[in-house]
Amino acid sequence: MIKISLPDGSVKEFEKNSTPMDVARSISEGLARNVISASYNGTIVETTTELTTDGSLILYTWNDKEGKKAFWHSTSHVMAQVLEEQYPGIKLTLGPAIDNGFYYDVDFGDTKITEAEFKAIEDRVLEVSREKHEFKMRSVSKAEALEVYKNNEYKTELISNLEDGTITFCDHANFFDLCRGGHIPNTGLIKAMKIMSVAGAYWRGDEKNKQLTRVYGISFPKQKELTEYLELLEEAKRRDHRKLGKELDLFAFSQKVGQGLPLWLPKGAALRDRLEQFLKKAQKKAGYEQVVTPHIGQKELYVTSGHYAKYGADSFQPIHTPAEGEEFLLKPMNCPHHCEIYNTRPWSYKDLPKRYAEFGTVYRYEQSGELHGLTRVRGFTQDDAHIFCTPDQLDSEFKKVIDLVLYVFSSLGFENFTAQISLRDQENREKYIGSDENWEKAENAIINAARDKGLNTVVEYGEAAFYGPKLDFMVKDALGRQWQLGTIQVDYNLPERFELNYKGADNEMHRPVMIHRAPFGSMERFIAILLEHTAGNFPLWLMPEQAIILSLSEKYENYAEKVLTLLENHEIRGLLDNRNETIGKKIRDAEVKKIPFMIIVGDEEEKNGTISVRRHGQEGKGNITVTVEEFAKIVNEEISKTLKPFVV
Amino acid sequence: MIKISLPDGSVKEFEKNSTPMDVARSISEGLARNVISASYNGTIVETTTELTTDGSLILYTWNDKEGKKAFWHSTSHVMAQVLEEQYPGIKLTLGPAIDNGFYYDVDFGDTKITEAEFKAIEDRVLEVSREKHEFKMRSVSKAEALEVYKNNEYKTELISNLEDGTITFCDHANFFDLCRGGHIPNTGLIKAMKIMSVAGAYWRGDEKNKQLTRVYGISFPKQKELTEYLELLEEAKRRDHRKLGKELDLFAFSQKVGQGLPLWLPKGAALRDRLEQFLKKAQKKAGYEQVVTPHIGQKELYVTSGHYAKYGADSFQPIHTPAEGEEFLLKPMNCPHHCEIYNTRPWSYKDLPKRYAEFGTVYRYEQSGELHGLTRVRGFTQDDAHIFCTPDQLDSEFKKVIDLVLYVFSSLGFENFTAQISLRDQENREKYIGSDENWEKAENAIINAARDKGLNTVVEYGEAAFYGPKLDFMVKDALGRQWQLGTIQVDYNLPERFELNYKGADNEMHRPVMIHRAPFGSMERFIAILLEHTAGNFPLWLMPEQAIILSLSEKYENYAEKVLTLLENHEIRGLLDNRNETIGKKIRDAEVKKIPFMIIVGDEEEKNGTISVRRHGQEGKGNITVTVEEFAKIVNEEISKTLKPFVV
Repeated sequence: MIKISLPDGSVKEFEKNSTPMDVARSISEGLARNVISASYNGTIVETTTELTTDGSLILYTWNDKEGKKAFWHSTSHVMAQVLEEQYPGIKLTLGPAIDNGFYYDVDFGDTKITEAEFKAIEDRVLEVSREKHEFKMRSVSKAEALEVYKNNEYKTELISNLEDGTITFCDHANFFDLCRGGHIPNTGLIKAMKIMSVAGAYWRGDEKNKQLTRVYGISFPKQKELTEYLELLEEAKRRDHRKLGKELDLFAFSQKVGQGLPLWLPKGAALRDRLEQFLKKAQKKAGYEQVVTPHIGQKELYVTSGHYAKYGADSFQPIHTPAEGEEFLLKPMNCPHHCEIYNTRPWSYKDLPKRYAEFGTVYRYEQSGELHGLTRVRGFTQDDAHIFCTPDQLDSEFKKVIDLVLYVFSSLGFENFTAQISLRDQENREKYIGSDENWEKAENAIINAARDKGLNTVVEYGEAAFYGPKLDFMVKDALGRQWQLGTIQVDYNLPERFELNYKGADNEMHRPVMIHRAPFGSMERFIAILLEHTAGNFPLWLMPEQAIILSLSEKYENYAEKVLTLLENHEIRGLLDNRNETIGKKIRDAEVKKIPFMIIVGDEEEKNGTISVRRHGQEGKGNITVTVEEFAKIVNEEISKTLKPFVV
Repeated sequence: MIKISLPDGSVKEFEKNSTPMDVARSISEGLARNVISASYNGTIVETTTELTTDGSLILYTWNDKEGKKAFWHSTSHVMAQVLEEQYPGIKLTLGPAIDNGFYYDVDFGDTKITEAEFKAIEDRVLEVSREKHEFKMRSVSKAEALEVYKNNEYKTELISNLEDGTITFCDHANFFDLCRGGHIPNTGLIKAMKIMSVAGAYWRGDEKNKQLTRVYGISFPKQKELTEYLELLEEAKRRDHRKLGKELDLFAFSQKVGQGLPLWLPKGAALRDRLEQFLKKAQKKAGYEQVVTPHIGQKELYVTSGHYAKYGADSFQPIHTPAEGEEFLLKPMNCPHHCEIYNTRPWSYKDLPKRYAEFGTVYRYEQSGELHGLTRVRGFTQDDAHIFCTPDQLDSEFKKVIDLVLYVFSSLGFENFTAQISLRDQENREKYIGSDENWEKAENAIINAARDKGLNTVVEYGEAAFYGPKLDFMVKDALGRQWQLGTIQVDYNLPERFELNYKGADNEMHRPVMIHRAPFGSMERFIAILLEHTAGNFPLWLMPEQAIILSLSEKYENYAEKVLTLLENHEIRGLLDNRNETIGKKIRDAEVKKIPFMIIVGDEEEKNGTISVRRHGQEGKGNITVTVEEFAKIVNEEISKTLKPFVV
């Protein structure tokens, strides 16, 4: 008998050589039906692996990341089998699961695979799958493995690097592959499969090697799930912030300025400014003070802060000057500058907390392959602030910041989020700077504040910043995708490094505690996510243009101008379309621009001093005719539903 | 006889060997009394120099820069004479005139000069001066000169580098000095003289050489002028923006962040923001659109713009990255980025002008010795904008910019200014980029616009930017000092270099013209000058705090809070002083902070629902008791006197 412990803490005895599936079956038939993968003592095993020692078992279903991984990796085997059938003579290399599906890198030799052929492959994959072939691992000697793959230089290379006695093949149907394991019980679970794309990929990612064909695929246990996934992909494509950013004239990139360095066009800059003013207003109420600091600092500043030792080599390199010995760095963070502001004068405990806020643009080097629209850039503006407070004030300050973050989310329509408490990796404490004692204080402050504010939290070990633990807000967007937005971080370390202090009530000097926080995270990333979340239909208060006036003909130009002035008086951002176009064309163009209200003015309206109002995306349903004053009231009421005043 | 032409274009005949003084006397006795220096054929001569060839003569008085130079240089001789008398054995080196006065670098050997001794030197200088000694130039052979100065290694070094036959001494009284010339007729003109300071200075500015003592002095033709100058200096010291910036908590510097990189403290950042919002509002009315661009760009961007070839070596050096071949530069100007924004889409003549505005922070390397407070920094924010227009629109756009600049000046209390039209150096045309034809077009556009707007202009050749001519606004501050503020520049060159174009009415592609402009110049420099101009008493609309509420005792705290809220409702920036201090102390502290209105609340005020208002700097004269509503009206009326709406 062996003792097997389960994630719920229970320990049960099983006969030696029981399999994970046996254990699942002993719990319930339902579970057994759903289990598709397992890990034993932290190592992925097959559901059919015979367990021979005591250990702890985790059973995975489709709902687990590990379950999906096994599912997709298994499908990759089936696809490889079908590719070999349909393209004889090809050479298989590696076929892992990825975040969304799997790929297989294949040397197609002289043949080529085209999109027109995907369907035949998919059909055959499903045909094979329906035959319910079990996946079975088999040990093979190194000599045998090399013999089997003697015509495949890729597998030969892989096998050469393995130790004899550790080499396994996985069999299913009449197919086998060099494989470490981690499969679903049988192919029958694969009910839907699609080849997503093919792309070039160098063998082992090295451009000196031969270029292979990477075949991307995905699979699901139900056809419906594939359909939904494809719809989601289509919608995500429609909402891609790079596409919307172009359509709505928000931002652009220039090869000459450089990759990952966005240029904000007038409408985008106005949007940014509106978000900044919104946050500034709330921050003013919350007792923050704006500061402005330069975008560079002497290297010494970052040596003091620890950033240089940590990131120096992978960053934008130092800026030299004609003077000898001078070295500056682009600032990767605003905190060292704010510490230096704190240090410009002495403080008493009565002066604290000091809350310095800055929309500070920072620069961080990212490899060009990692860049992506506004979500991964080389220069971005953080809605940054640093709070310097006494240890006694930490809890209440931390809670106040949570309030501000929640206010930002509710004003911008993010309703679905979890707060990730990022703590140290317990096993790699040397990765972090600062004393154990301070880390514990800071970690507890975060855990308490999140609990007291009733946040929906998850704890992640090893996700802390190198200088302190943090609370990261993970937001789910309208497509159910998760994004990291705002962050709040406690820091006992920079105050030490910059020798910050204040005179306490005891007349002694003390170190303040620092909180780093950014509710948006960065303007670039936030706007990207907001674009994808809202598909460009921002909350009304944020829209670049809230209303567009469409004159029925040039006869009504004067009245249209008058309406525009009235809108401006009511602080509604309006636009005029006086082009010599049909009203139908004007409406279509306004719909593309996603302007929330179309105001149509013609004979009737001018005569009665009214406007006809049509809403974006409602195809003319619910059009109303009102005065500008009544319209302003409607607009303001709608705005006040999302944008409430921030209450401290 | 020789022919002598004068600056008014007249040419007169004089006997050979006539002196400039003879010419002056021939014009009028009054002129002869005032002439203190002269130049002949572009070379400085003595008023007693005998003219032997035809040529053009300029006569200088105290009111000319060259006149002052001769005056101060001559005083330097007299001071040197007195120093030799009073400190026997010292070694004289060089004693030139400078912008304000003169200095003499002296090797005092083992003795030292102290401030207590200044008076005796000054007295003796005036005593010698009253003796009306003439300055007389005398040629000396190199051998003789070396013999005379054989115990003075400095003069010996100077003489060694001169060619025999070109060496002259200047005599006056019993004193002589190695000298090139350029003196006033006699010492009798020097009626007031003061030693300003002494400082260390290395021989020939090289720190490997011996350190000498630099004795700074100044002199005037009237005692009254010296008195006024000293008063001005005192006032300038009181108004020094570095001092006021500290007192008013506006900005600070940090050694760790780096010299010349200001940190804007909360009050300073708020001041900047207010100025920015003020200009943004006017610019919005004038049809500008805000954009936001990064603070770096690829080196290629500045190679295209021409900045790299021109400034590369003397600038912050390129930023490398971990990737090979990538090079970025801190942006020294915003124009290349704005050109790239223009280039993100095609334009038609109907779309122009495009006016892109950005408060863009740029970085330019200055040697550490050149840095000065906020007026000479390494990072600064330009209130920049670039107008892209058709050649036909240039005149009207240029005039619109002039209107905006004038609006800025009037709103900020700068009433005294001239517009400097900076054109090419006619003799060094190769210094400038772009075609002759384009330069002429641009120069004429500026001259015409300045004339049509009735500006008080001066034309300076050789002061243009390398890429185009410009109109610089030179403002006189309250102390009569001149500062360069706003600038407007026409540019036909960047549109060529960036291949900007638009489709004209003729359906052909054309190059737009570009206008660079910055009414403030930079936020840093403008705020520095505004501080010195106003001594920190900014126009009311701009004051960080407009009113401070001083409660007579803690009994009135609640009422004081209520008044503060009422002020906020009227958009008056208020502050509360509820400290447990006497009202006298509270008033004194508020005066130091230069807060325009002190609002005193006590028993009477609370009972009657009023406030007692005292103005800054009026010592309680004209105190009034009013309601907050009445007070708000007073404030707004005063604001509207300087801050009028911008009318396009």
